[in-house]
Amino acid sequence: MSADGKLHLGAFMRPVSLHTGSWRHEAAWADANFNFDRLSYLAKRLEAAKFDAFFMADHLAVLNMPIEALRRSQTVTSFEPFTLLSALSVVTDRIGLVATASTTFDEPYHIARRFASLDHLSRGRAGWNIVTTSNPDAALNFGRTEQPDHAERYARAREFYDVVTGLWDSFADDAFARDAASGQFFDPERMHVLNHKGEYLSVRGPLNIARPVQGWPVIVQAGASEPGRQLAAETAEVVFAATPTLAAGKAFYADVKGRAVAAGRSRDDIAILPGAFVVVGDTVDEARAKRAHLDSLVHYESALASLSVALGVDASGFDPDGPLPEIPETNQSKSSRERVIALARNEGLTVRQLAQRLGGYAGLAFVGTPGTIANDMQQWLEEEGSDGFNVTFPWQPGGLDAFVDRVVPELQRRGIFRREYEGTTLRDHLGLRRPENRFFPE
Amino acid sequence: MSADGKLHLGAFMRPVSLHTGSWRHEAAWADANFNFDRLSYLAKRLEAAKFDAFFMADHLAVLNMPIEALRRSQTVTSFEPFTLLSALSVVTDRIGLVATASTTFDEPYHIARRFASLDHLSRGRAGWNIVTTSNPDAALNFGRTEQPDHAERYARAREFYDVVTGLWDSFADDAFARDAASGQFFDPERMHVLNHKGEYLSVRGPLNIARPVQGWPVIVQAGASEPGRQLAAETAEVVFAATPTLAAGKAFYADVKGRAVAAGRSRDDIAILPGAFVVVGDTVDEARAKRAHLDSLVHYESALASLSVALGVDASGFDPDGPLPEIPETNQSKSSRERVIALARNEGLTVRQLAQRLGGYAGLAFVGTPGTIANDMQQWLEEEGSDGFNVTFPWQPGGLDAFVDRVVPELQRRGIFRREYEGTTLRDHLGLRRPENRFFPE
Ligand SMILES: Cc1cc2nc3c(=O)[nH]c(=O)nc-3n(C[C@H](O)[C@H](O)[C@H](O)COP(=O)(O)O)c2cc1C
Ligand SMILES: Cc1cc2nc3c(=O)[nH]c(=O)nc-3n(C[C@H](O)[C@H](O)[C@H](O)COP(=O)(O)O)c2cc1C
Repeated sequence: MSADGKLHLGAFMRPVSLHTGSWRHEAAWADANFNFDRLSYLAKRLEAAKFDAFFMADHLAVLNMPIEALRRSQTVTSFEPFTLLSALSVVTDRIGLVATASTTFDEPYHIARRFASLDHLSRGRAGWNIVTTSNPDAALNFGRTEQPDHAERYARAREFYDVVTGLWDSFADDAFARDAASGQFFDPERMHVLNHKGEYLSVRGPLNIARPVQGWPVIVQAGASEPGRQLAAETAEVVFAATPTLAAGKAFYADVKGRAVAAGRSRDDIAILPGAFVVVGDTVDEARAKRAHLDSLVHYESALASLSVALGVDASGFDPDGPLPEIPETNQSKSSRERVIALARNEGLTVRQLAQRLGGYAGLAFVGTPGTIANDMQQWLEEEGSDGFNVTFPWQPGGLDAFVDRVVPELQRRGIFRREYEGTTLRDHLGLRRPENRFFPE
Repeated sequence: MSADGKLHLGAFMRPVSLHTGSWRHEAAWADANFNFDRLSYLAKRLEAAKFDAFFMADHLAVLNMPIEALRRSQTVTSFEPFTLLSALSVVTDRIGLVATASTTFDEPYHIARRFASLDHLSRGRAGWNIVTTSNPDAALNFGRTEQPDHAERYARAREFYDVVTGLWDSFADDAFARDAASGQFFDPERMHVLNHKGEYLSVRGPLNIARPVQGWPVIVQAGASEPGRQLAAETAEVVFAATPTLAAGKAFYADVKGRAVAAGRSRDDIAILPGAFVVVGDTVDEARAKRAHLDSLVHYESALASLSVALGVDASGFDPDGPLPEIPETNQSKSSRERVIALARNEGLTVRQLAQRLGGYAGLAFVGTPGTIANDMQQWLEEEGSDGFNVTFPWQPGGLDAFVDRVVPELQRRGIFRREYEGTTLRDHLGLRRPENRFFPE
């Protein structure tokens, strides 16, 4: 159960839907991912529904997928997070604004500054999703022939976090007197020069911007590996999980909260929000039909690639309209193979439907009525599968509108989601303390 | 004379005034440099007055000045340009938004993306002031012990420009069909992979964002050295000059336009806008008194440092309230020494007044009535000292209000400044063509 016994909801908004067929829906805004007016509409609706945060993933390359998938993907042109969130900060008042930024291909002075600036512009609504960037194509856009290895990326990320938070602490909150009479704009005694010299980074400081409104923007993390979980346990205040089942969710939740406690933090210092794809219908069957319709919009050729990866065998020779044939066991991807076979059997899917399901959105999904969706979410909350969700919508604006108009009121009726914001900052929404300035303790 | 025979006006807005005493003015918003509501007000007023652009300088460190000057400087906390300009793009409609970004301490993929994103968000109003960052303290914030030398910084800047403009050309304008029926979001044949491998940079591409509305954001440059001018001649569409007199302005203008022609461009492809500090009064004497009042707000200790540098001798032993004593000739700073001695003599300034003048704002200034200021500006335009100005205001909001309310109408009355915007993009305001896509010519 989350600290306040309530769900916390993020909206996964870059891309505006993770379902690859979403933009082809007949009522969809096909350009929603790259149209500021449409994104403003969506952000305002999320805020009216009292979402904790608007979340933007980020990638430092056109995504590395087969060209037949890429040509069908709305991700190929997206706004850069800091620019978009700064613009959205003007058309919204309360909702948190979470940007993803890479510790592998950027500099801590830049990152610290941009988040501090966004936090001031938004009056305390910024969050930083720390990623180490696993797409190897990104390295090629930054003067490298290959990316640093996984362990090194995480070691640098940990040091990077220390530097960025240290830069945010450059000034005491009371440093800026702006006293026209004496002419003292700020007090240099209340400024700290970081002088960081570490294994990967060397940064003098101070930052040329006042301490963020929130002290530090909220720290978010989405890595799932051993070092990813450890980084989360030591630093994150929100974790975006990718746990596809309640059992996986519970195991992840217990693991990360346990690690946090072992690292000297409290369980309530971290909120764990798995990504969830939510499709709302008047009946469960109608919701399933809606999902099947979206899945049917996924191109078979690109879907087949997803199926082949999941099964560990080349699926391109299978009869698209027949049932899934017997699949030999392989060494790799044992668990995903079993999950996919079970899925095909349970739902009676043809090869085509199965491929398109996987190529559409393969993770945790709540597909049903407002009541069944609220039941599922409540169960995750009560059984400690999560502290809420990072919701991805089936298409825009209809998928988001349905969630906001129908699911949110049901969650509110049950008392497991807020009716009003409790405060003004993202920290307030998440029930997080403002961190003390390490150089200027109170 | 500029291409259209009219002045082009930028507003120097980071910091909101270059006069170091500005924030202490009794009617000033002391926090204007770091308060979004105040900056919004100022941007809207500049837009109502039909300014070409709102310009933000940028620095990657707290400015390296003596602590006695720094503690009195409003520059110590400022918004980061991309975040602020993105937010301002929402509260304005037409005015250009020019951000400074360094080619020495950033990556071309980041820079190309952020400007492209800002250009899309603002519907074609972005400009990039290319700087190589001369403050040695910046290097210390980016893992270096010293900055690369001047020649190397400019060589990298030239290559950086090629990469950024190449990334902007990643997609043809018609690449994005978003054809829901066929499922084709974009046409990979209309996407170009840059594959740049050069002396300083290696960047594969493509950019993960559509070609900017303006094709390329407007290219601005502010370097004054030999390689700085050459970079401007080859690449810039606007040059921010720092020429303190009409004679210097004419020489710089002729030099840079001549270099542009030698580089195969047209004179009208570059607008040259010197920085100008403008103080408006009902009479010339009143304007001078206003300036003297602002100068009196500069702290003597920090002003003395400026005077000592300008004279090439230590001025701290001089009688502050006496006239400037005889100054021996030295080898360094011969021309600045003579200029300062002449200034003291012409205006009958005491040592204190002289020091505070230099420590306030020492560059080109128009101090007078709307009529004398318009006369001066018109002379610069007609005699090819410039194509307009990058105006810095004495204090905020009064200094900007006075310029907008009194000088702009006078310029309009004379037919040397627009009454309405001619188009919607910054290129439209400046009379610049949209560059052709080098990979997808029309
Ligand atoms: C909800 C969610 C959002 C993510 N967003 C990004 C992102 O925006 N950019 C990115 O490079 N990686 C992103 N990732 C990937 C993770 O940062 C991480 O690389 C991945 O989960 C693999 O974990 P590991 O690196 O710990 O092995 C995201 C992962 C999840 C679950
Ligand atoms: C109007 C104007 C604005 C400038 N803005 C910046 C700036 O924002 N950031 C910066 O690092 N340098 C800035 N500069 C400095 C120039 O980029 C350049 O370093 C300086 O004029 C010295 O020229 P040089 O480098 O060619 O020798 C500016 C200069 C002028 C005249």
